[in-house]
Amino acid sequence: MELAEHIKTATVERVVLTRPFQAPARGALCLTGHHLLFSGRDGDGDGDRGRQLLLLLRSVDAVEKRVENLLGHTRHGLSAGQSLRTVASSGTITLKCKDLCVLQLDIPGMEECLNIASSVEALSALDRVTQMYPFFYRPSNSSLDGPWGLSTPEKDLVQLAGLQDKWRVSHINSDYSVCPTYPAAVIVPRTVDDQTLVKAAQFRQGGRFPVLCYYHQKNGTVIMRSSQPLPGANRKRCRDDELLLQAVIDGSEVAYIIDTRSGQQAQQARMTGGGFESKTFYNSWKRLHRHLERGKVLQESLIKLVEACSDQSHSVDRWLSKLENSKWLTHIHSALSTAGLVAECVERDGHSVLIHGFEGTDSTLLVTTLAQLILDPDARTLRGFLALLEREWVQAGHPFQLRCAHSAYSHTRLKQESPVFLLMLDCVWQLCRQFPLAMEVGEPLLLRLAQEAYASNYGTFLCNSEQERCAVDIKTRTHCLFQFLLRPDKRDEYINPLYQPTHLAIWPSVQPQSLHLWWGFFLRWTDHAQNMAEAREVMWRIVAERFEDES
Amino acid sequence: MELAEHIKTATVERVVLTRPFQAPARGALCLTGHHLLFSGRDGDGDGDRGRQLLLLLRSVDAVEKRVENLLGHTRHGLSAGQSLRTVASSGTITLKCKDLCVLQLDIPGMEECLNIASSVEALSALDRVTQMYPFFYRPSNSSLDGPWGLSTPEKDLVQLAGLQDKWRVSHINSDYSVCPTYPAAVIVPRTVDDQTLVKAAQFRQGGRFPVLCYYHQKNGTVIMRSSQPLPGANRKRCRDDELLLQAVIDGSEVAYIIDTRSGQQAQQARMTGGGFESKTFYNSWKRLHRHLERGKVLQESLIKLVEACSDQSHSVDRWLSKLENSKWLTHIHSALSTAGLVAECVERDGHSVLIHGFEGTDSTLLVTTLAQLILDPDARTLRGFLALLEREWVQAGHPFQLRCAHSAYSHTRLKQESPVFLLMLDCVWQLCRQFPLAMEVGEPLLLRLAQEAYASNYGTFLCNSEQERCAVDIKTRTHCLFQFLLRPDKRDEYINPLYQPTHLAIWPSVQPQSLHLWWGFFLRWTDHAQNMAEAREVMWRIVAERFEDES
Repeated sequence: MELAEHIKTATVERVVLTRPFQAPARGALCLTGHHLLFSGRDGDGDGDRGRQLLLLLRSVDAVEKRVENLLGHTRHGLSAGQSLRTVASSGTITLKCKDLCVLQLDIPGMEECLNIASSVEALSALDRVTQMYPFFYRPSNSSLDGPWGLSTPEKDLVQLAGLQDKWRVSHINSDYSVCPTYPAAVIVPRTVDDQTLVKAAQFRQGGRFPVLCYYHQKNGTVIMRSSQPLPGANRKRCRDDELLLQAVIDGSEVAYIIDTRSGQQAQQARMTGGGFESKTFYNSWKRLHRHLERGKVLQESLIKLVEACSDQSHSVDRWLSKLENSKWLTHIHSALSTAGLVAECVERDGHSVLIHGFEGTDSTLLVTTLAQLILDPDARTLRGFLALLEREWVQAGHPFQLRCAHSAYSHTRLKQESPVFLLMLDCVWQLCRQFPLAMEVGEPLLLRLAQEAYASNYGTFLCNSEQERCAVDIKTRTHCLFQFLLRPDKRDEYINPLYQPTHLAIWPSVQPQSLHLWWGFFLRWTDHAQNMAEAREVMWRIVAERFEDES
Repeated sequence: MELAEHIKTATVERVVLTRPFQAPARGALCLTGHHLLFSGRDGDGDGDRGRQLLLLLRSVDAVEKRVENLLGHTRHGLSAGQSLRTVASSGTITLKCKDLCVLQLDIPGMEECLNIASSVEALSALDRVTQMYPFFYRPSNSSLDGPWGLSTPEKDLVQLAGLQDKWRVSHINSDYSVCPTYPAAVIVPRTVDDQTLVKAAQFRQGGRFPVLCYYHQKNGTVIMRSSQPLPGANRKRCRDDELLLQAVIDGSEVAYIIDTRSGQQAQQARMTGGGFESKTFYNSWKRLHRHLERGKVLQESLIKLVEACSDQSHSVDRWLSKLENSKWLTHIHSALSTAGLVAECVERDGHSVLIHGFEGTDSTLLVTTLAQLILDPDARTLRGFLALLEREWVQAGHPFQLRCAHSAYSHTRLKQESPVFLLMLDCVWQLCRQFPLAMEVGEPLLLRLAQEAYASNYGTFLCNSEQERCAVDIKTRTHCLFQFLLRPDKRDEYINPLYQPTHLAIWPSVQPQSLHLWWGFFLRWTDHAQNMAEAREVMWRIVAERFEDES
């Protein structure tokens, strides 16, 4: 189905747009395959800026409509098909966006209203990736021939002194047949041959055999990640998997497996073919369980939190109860604690760590990312952080398309949605807040990424794996977000101008008193947040100018 | 009793001091009548700064001691008198300060430990005001002949254009006989003579007849404050009080009485001689009840909050429950809402307001202060804010000595303690946070004031009223805090360098989501707050330098 076929009414005049921070504006609404355009026609508006809107339809999470007939009766939730031309007079569409912004459109004409609503519903939820806007986005100042992405395992291997002695790049997955969700190249112990990897992959869910994700130069220990092993109910073993892990550590040493499931969950997983590394066969590896919530539980937590944030009752008790009840800060706490534990193993105790849960595509990546931010000063720079996201989320096969299809407002039945990437960004915000000097990453970057993961002009977060991205030629047919964010003219927007690099690990406080609601994201569309954002901009500008003067 | 008589052991060697942000230090402890001195003797400390401490004893809220005998047995809470010389080996004193800092002293020798503890207990809680440190504090760079205080009712009357037409200064209370807790001069309607004031005072609790506290130049409306009237069970009336209030408004107009008690409380007050302004006798005044908690309830709220903040359990749920349960943010919410209501009456509706509760020395002042900050751009400057505190708290007779005798840690039975001044500072912090550009007052000033109200080198917050201060010659025998804070070399520490004056009212959001824990105060002694304070200093310095360059 062509995009145009979803559009029954392409333009409507005399629409009133209401949105945060601005007076309602009257003007024309125009719908294209990927955008909703609004052009204010009032003479008394506050300039063009206040009366223009270009909304990417993909960023709409939920569409709510209400129509009124001439007698003033209101009918809620009419299905788009109902023809009510005879009695229709006007309608209101509420667009709830994935970045939590809520817009309202008052549209004269019930049919127009219903048509617009059903078009937005359809076009905001396109399934075919090649129909999505990144495949059509062609900015004048950028070419599709430019570089794509920030690094590769080959470059990483060369850049880190000491890494090459014991580690190598394997291309065994170059056709994605060993592990469909891994990139074509991964870093593995030098002493392990590709055949061992193939067999180890067969013993790991989805073929996600243990690979390197971080090398701690200070003491040579590493962080590995994988999915769960597959011993199943019969306690099968896989000597190749054991060999691979044994090769990570040097003989007598001890290492840790941090399992992001509870002990009970790991036990139960054996019933469905999964399980955990037994003490007998992996005797150098000590297993610790740190339960992190995932999937639906996280998604429901987000929904509850967003609901709490838009609660209009004026009771402090009720707000704090709802905040508590959402458990979002508890998930932040668990993620940061577990990452802290991993970092302690590596930095303080000098032990390597393997991290996995079930699939190794969600909580696992959350923990490896945060642990690297704690340990690695490079990861705290703007470029380093984006490279980290590229490696640990995009290349490592976090299924963005499934997880970020909808956000907190959608009424569609949730399937695979889960805000684990957003949870990670929130944890990074907590780090930025606790270490306001040590992170080059600024809050505006986190806000932008939170938006881009759900709806974007760029191809970076499309699809669920490198294989899928390769199949649709993402690298030649779309633009790269990370390259864009690093452009000299953009960079300043996203960095923390107070940044003062430290080579030390930054140990986050996980005391509940130290964890705060990320108001910049969750309360972004309130006046109060607007005041603070404005002040931050003033401050940032002054500080940034100051730094320029000095340099 | 001379101060020296409280000191049985004046110096102890080989004491170990443990305090936030610093490694434990070993050195000598020395006790004077007003201070505890510690001098580090280690060669490997981090410079003098880290190993010196000069603690004003008045700032100690609670003393906890634990002694150990040679056999290693521990005895808790020994009373200071017990002689345990024969078995004693060492002891530990924990000093919990009114600014929430907690220090620990490990003292060799049980007797020394008990002596020090009992001395600190006695000297931190001196009753006689002239024994307190402000009467002994003689800084070399300041003279007692300098100006005291920032303004007087006479000056206020002259400075405000339009005020003199209808208002005058009355000196009827020059000997404090009409109202013991009012200053010698107050501003009242020009048409009301002193005899009317005397009679109105007899109809108000503690003689606190209605006086002017704010004149809104934009529309000539005013904010007045008083204590409750005294109709009692027999519904007595006082024509002079009615006349006084009638004179505030012009004939046909309507005005509001905001009563900081619930309707029920106001009714019940009649049983004990108090009550409220009846509709019959005050027919131009509409009464609204906005219940604000006071006294013991506030004190207990503070204690619970501080307890919650020092909770070491790592449960987010527990923390949020405790935060909610303390109700502190609910009190913030009520205070800001009520102040907002007052400001709306004055600015938006153009009606004058009278505020009172019971005594008119606590919640009343909280509301008048916050309403003025919302309305009056001058009150948001450093000087204006200090003048506001002088007028609305010091001169208006907030009983600082009774309310701030102890803070959240004290084990002594609470009598009149109540953190209403601290609650006001917290509300001001919320304003600073919500309007980061509009307030010249910076957080460091609020932190300093929170400390000074409980323990100070200055005479400003001593005693409970101007009469009491006058009786002990505060103005000639102690130094003035406000003058000190405005010294050019100090000023920069306390202002918000981002300050951009606005002549508009600043309407605080009282949505619960917009109200935050004042971490800078309540979590001041955690590493996390330390990081943030450090970053703020870096930022402030840069911004301040920038502003200097421009000027």
